[in-house]
Amino acid sequence: MHLDLPEAIAVLRRTPGALRALLSDLPESWLHGREGPDTWSPFDVIGHLIDGEETDWIPRVRIILAGGPNPVFEPFDRFRHLRLNGGKPLSALLDRFARLRAENVATLEGFRLSRRDLERPGVHPELGPVTLGQLLATWVAHDLGHIAQVARVMAKQYGDEVGPWRAYLPVLTR
Amino acid sequence: MHLDLPEAIAVLRRTPGALRALLSDLPESWLHGREGPDTWSPFDVIGHLIDGEETDWIPRVRIILAGGPNPVFEPFDRFRHLRLNGGKPLSALLDRFARLRAENVATLEGFRLSRRDLERPGVHPELGPVTLGQLLATWVAHDLGHIAQVARVMAKQYGDEVGPWRAYLPVLTR
Repeated sequence: MHLDLPEAIAVLRRTPGALRALLSDLPESWLHGREGPDTWSPFDVIGHLIDGEETDWIPRVRIILAGGPNPVFEPFDRFRHLRLNGGKPLSALLDRFARLRAENVATLEGFRLSRRDLERPGVHPELGPVTLGQLLATWVAHDLGHIAQVARVMAKQYGDEVGPWRAYLPVLTR
Repeated sequence: MHLDLPEAIAVLRRTPGALRALLSDLPESWLHGREGPDTWSPFDVIGHLIDGEETDWIPRVRIILAGGPNPVFEPFDRFRHLRLNGGKPLSALLDRFARLRAENVATLEGFRLSRRDLERPGVHPELGPVTLGQLLATWVAHDLGHIAQVARVMAKQYGDEVGPWRAYLPVLTR
């Protein structure tokens, strides 16, 4: 698929609801399992998505749209949520993510971006030159990657319980 | 995690809503993308989950609970949905999956399974001896694997659009 703004926004709008439908009021035991050391639980992923809303996606769009001579992004702190969210209930994080995402989608739509705007340049602090269109496609793919991660991490909690069916469940070994 | 029936059922109940929240009324272009030849689109996955409700999970539970001398399962036809669902709207499949799942969870709860029941034996036509507990854990992990698949397949539709960010998105290359 080529990036089409309404198609991209359709996914961005759905991510909070999909994660809420999967995780809301689930027994705690599902929320804090991991895949191994230094990996994230479903709870951690929601915190990371909140960080993206607060510090990454729209701030980077604004840097590109400002059109300065050196449109370099701030580095994204991938570990901020681990300091901020300990002890909070997941429901509060799900609510916060949904509210921030709705605001950010409204902000994005308010920019009334044209096809040509999607070619506007930014500079990633590590990856180098990128475009606004690439940033928006990444926002979408990043959401979907983390939905996949949450489901995969949950599946792995039953890695032993499935017995011989393990051979038929590639999600357990990805 | 060890299998705990209420924890398992909590996930089984949420799968239809999570997939509906992600996919309902999405632009068609998201629904039919694949990862490659002989792989499934999000639309195909919903059809496969319906097949599981109609022909696999509860019928296998019943074979185990019947306690006959040779509790061997019918093979699961993983391609039935490809014959049945062509041209149907996704909304009809999402509705059907939700209805079947609600019925099957009610049926499962109606069995009032004890811890000891979870040890009861069945025979998988290819994998050999299994237990009821392994079957139920597999039902849950299978759901989660297909949620992960749907999100991953969607993410891959933007595999080129993300540009240099591809290096930071492991979901695109799993």
